[in-house]
Amino acid sequence: MLVAPVAKSEEAMKEAEDITRTLASYVVAARYSDVPEAVRKEAVRSLLNWAGCAIGGSGHEAVDRALAAVQPFAGAPESGILGRTERIDVLNAALLNGISSHVFDFDDTHLKTIIHPAGPVASALLPLAERQRMTGAELLHAFILGVEVECRIGNAVYPAHYDIGWHITGTAGVFGAAAAVGKVLGLDVQQMTWALGIAGTQSSGFREMFGTMCKSFHPGRAAQNGLLSAHLAKQNFTSSNRVLEAPRGFGFVMSAKRDFNEVTKNLGEHFEISLNTYKPFACGIVIHPAIDGAIQLRNTHKLTAQMIDRIDLRVAPLVLELTGKRTPRVGLEGKFSVFHSVAVAIIHGAAGESEYADAVVADPDVIALRNRVDAVVDPSIRDDEVYISIRLRDGRVLETHVEHALGSLERPMSNTDLEGKFLRLCAGVLPADQAQRVLAAFWSADRIKDAAELGRSTVPAVK
Amino acid sequence: MLVAPVAKSEEAMKEAEDITRTLASYVVAARYSDVPEAVRKEAVRSLLNWAGCAIGGSGHEAVDRALAAVQPFAGAPESGILGRTERIDVLNAALLNGISSHVFDFDDTHLKTIIHPAGPVASALLPLAERQRMTGAELLHAFILGVEVECRIGNAVYPAHYDIGWHITGTAGVFGAAAAVGKVLGLDVQQMTWALGIAGTQSSGFREMFGTMCKSFHPGRAAQNGLLSAHLAKQNFTSSNRVLEAPRGFGFVMSAKRDFNEVTKNLGEHFEISLNTYKPFACGIVIHPAIDGAIQLRNTHKLTAQMIDRIDLRVAPLVLELTGKRTPRVGLEGKFSVFHSVAVAIIHGAAGESEYADAVVADPDVIALRNRVDAVVDPSIRDDEVYISIRLRDGRVLETHVEHALGSLERPMSNTDLEGKFLRLCAGVLPADQAQRVLAAFWSADRIKDAAELGRSTVPAVK
Repeated sequence: MLVAPVAKSEEAMKEAEDITRTLASYVVAARYSDVPEAVRKEAVRSLLNWAGCAIGGSGHEAVDRALAAVQPFAGAPESGILGRTERIDVLNAALLNGISSHVFDFDDTHLKTIIHPAGPVASALLPLAERQRMTGAELLHAFILGVEVECRIGNAVYPAHYDIGWHITGTAGVFGAAAAVGKVLGLDVQQMTWALGIAGTQSSGFREMFGTMCKSFHPGRAAQNGLLSAHLAKQNFTSSNRVLEAPRGFGFVMSAKRDFNEVTKNLGEHFEISLNTYKPFACGIVIHPAIDGAIQLRNTHKLTAQMIDRIDLRVAPLVLELTGKRTPRVGLEGKFSVFHSVAVAIIHGAAGESEYADAVVADPDVIALRNRVDAVVDPSIRDDEVYISIRLRDGRVLETHVEHALGSLERPMSNTDLEGKFLRLCAGVLPADQAQRVLAAFWSADRIKDAAELGRSTVPAVK
Repeated sequence: MLVAPVAKSEEAMKEAEDITRTLASYVVAARYSDVPEAVRKEAVRSLLNWAGCAIGGSGHEAVDRALAAVQPFAGAPESGILGRTERIDVLNAALLNGISSHVFDFDDTHLKTIIHPAGPVASALLPLAERQRMTGAELLHAFILGVEVECRIGNAVYPAHYDIGWHITGTAGVFGAAAAVGKVLGLDVQQMTWALGIAGTQSSGFREMFGTMCKSFHPGRAAQNGLLSAHLAKQNFTSSNRVLEAPRGFGFVMSAKRDFNEVTKNLGEHFEISLNTYKPFACGIVIHPAIDGAIQLRNTHKLTAQMIDRIDLRVAPLVLELTGKRTPRVGLEGKFSVFHSVAVAIIHGAAGESEYADAVVADPDVIALRNRVDAVVDPSIRDDEVYISIRLRDGRVLETHVEHALGSLERPMSNTDLEGKFLRLCAGVLPADQAQRVLAAFWSADRIKDAAELGRSTVPAVK
């Protein structure tokens, strides 16, 4: 049953009193000085990783087409769009940033819920900073709170909500965007409660859209809709005060199970952004251990494709279920091929967006090596684990065991790793020296006086 | 279970092939010359009734607040807003028309699904007509098709979808708006399929919002989002081709049951707009028989409140469940009071928006009469039926039995009834002579050369 019978719902109503208002009150009262240093640092890393993805994806045709569609209706060009030269109104900039930051599926992941937390929140805040003056610290605090709101709401309904078919980055993200923007707008508790309500009643996005441009439309629209919700609430546009907990609200309508305690427990003590992770490789996370191990063996032994007779993987069951494509023909299919991914890891020493270009997938050298990669499933292997054995033509056998893939919570991307990823994503969009300046701006995000500089730093000089 | 197990879903997938594409193909190929005359006439009546509601609600504070929130981000002022002097971009005009047309809850009702069909569709089309030249016939045809799409999708999931807590006017309406606008934009079948997909992945709106400004936000946002979806699809922004029937699409994610046959059967032969109804009274439809009967007795016997000792109603069970409020204090509560409604029916001979003003609910004469109204439930009485007995102070007893309330399918509002309602809604917004001109424009909707005249006719002269 999706909806509990009425009697049970009324019981649940009593238990679940004031969930939305409690969350709203926390966001309104929260102070940046109470946020631990480690949390702030993780927030800067999240923001930087997100910005790299948005710059890297800014030239994607999904962004071009969305821009062409909204341009005739767009308002005052108060904001830039990350990585692009056009200016547009703040609401549409939020949409476009959200699309570009998710279009490579390379952005951050809150592993507990598989929400990509930064997209809906940061995509709204950076444009807003160009309209409404705020410091870097104010922006970062709002970002932390927005991520907190969306991930806690995600925790309350995951996995039942996702299993039904909801794209949780969109459905939970809209709440995060509303909360973050509401914080910057200085909403009072009633207005913040309404902002969450207006956001929630727009919560949407089907997993059916995966593989189409609508997947990245979801975080974009979540950013834009959350931004609008906060502005409506600022004008006292009313909504329910109980969007999360009411029997006909988010938790009951959009999920088969919900635990509202996840929304309210330890508010201000625990921060979900501490659990954020960043992808080192531009593909599904289940292939990451294999790529990681292959690059390690390559670098340690200075391997080339010619030296290799065959590569054998022992992998978690999900790997072949999700990424077992033997003969990918185009780049997008390459992302669903553990064989292609390991081949480029050996040949290029990387698996970024450029290693999933159509030309690379069709490269005869890559094809020749991927045909010598084999994988068997071992149910005892965890999702972030792999065993690799490489037999060389000279008879040697090289082996490695990756316990936790790079990018997992146990082996997080270092700041240096993040910088490398960032700069690779900027290549082709920004000149190298500008990319370095953007990087420096984002590392100093919580210290800059005018947060609008963050977005502005990413605009390519007009040629 | 909300979602059928995977095996079952795959079975359902096979059964439910090409539902979305079939619907899209129909909309693309449909010709106005194939629409029967009676259907066109009902469409004109629907549009006229909707326009009256939008003009009447145009000064509501929900519209003022929404306008204040979106104004800073609004684009080129290409469109008017019904009943107002401001101009704004087409997307925001759709939002604001949608809010004003539903804010009194006085708009049309497709009784099979309790969708209010005109709001999401017409609210998008009238602004679009100011940007993109179309004839009245083209607008009316797109309107008929949009209503067809939303009501068929509603039929496929009602009542399970509504019972979960979805506000079906918003959730189904967004498809209708996308289809109607897509027809005007001349989308091809692939683009129309994408337009429905982009619309569907924004489908949203909780019944929890009833009683707040977000209720009327739903049709407004459905209109705006559908309008955007069609423009995105026109730019070849891609989505799933199977938003309705896929296991992770609308029918399975947002409803516990679905019958896709409702979407595709008899397309082009049967038109759902033929089943549209119009409210004579500005309150919940379950009180309509009592108001209708009371007004009949009043007019026949020239009753005044002073003549009446007591009024006894025998009503359907839902009447007291939904509208049993004994002592309403403000206008909105009056709408949920059969006692207040019958009292104003006797005293004012009407139950329009003005009979639910705060002052009328607090009027001592109204309160005195409503305290002499009593009602008992009789489970054998249908929702559109009532028995009324009025005992006069002179000892006479007047009785009537309303078999089908005015506004039901069996006793539809006449054109004269609709005109009276329209003019009463315009009073206070437009001068009487202008209201007559607007009425004439809408009666001739399918014959005017430039459909933009419809919206323009409703703009009050600036004082």
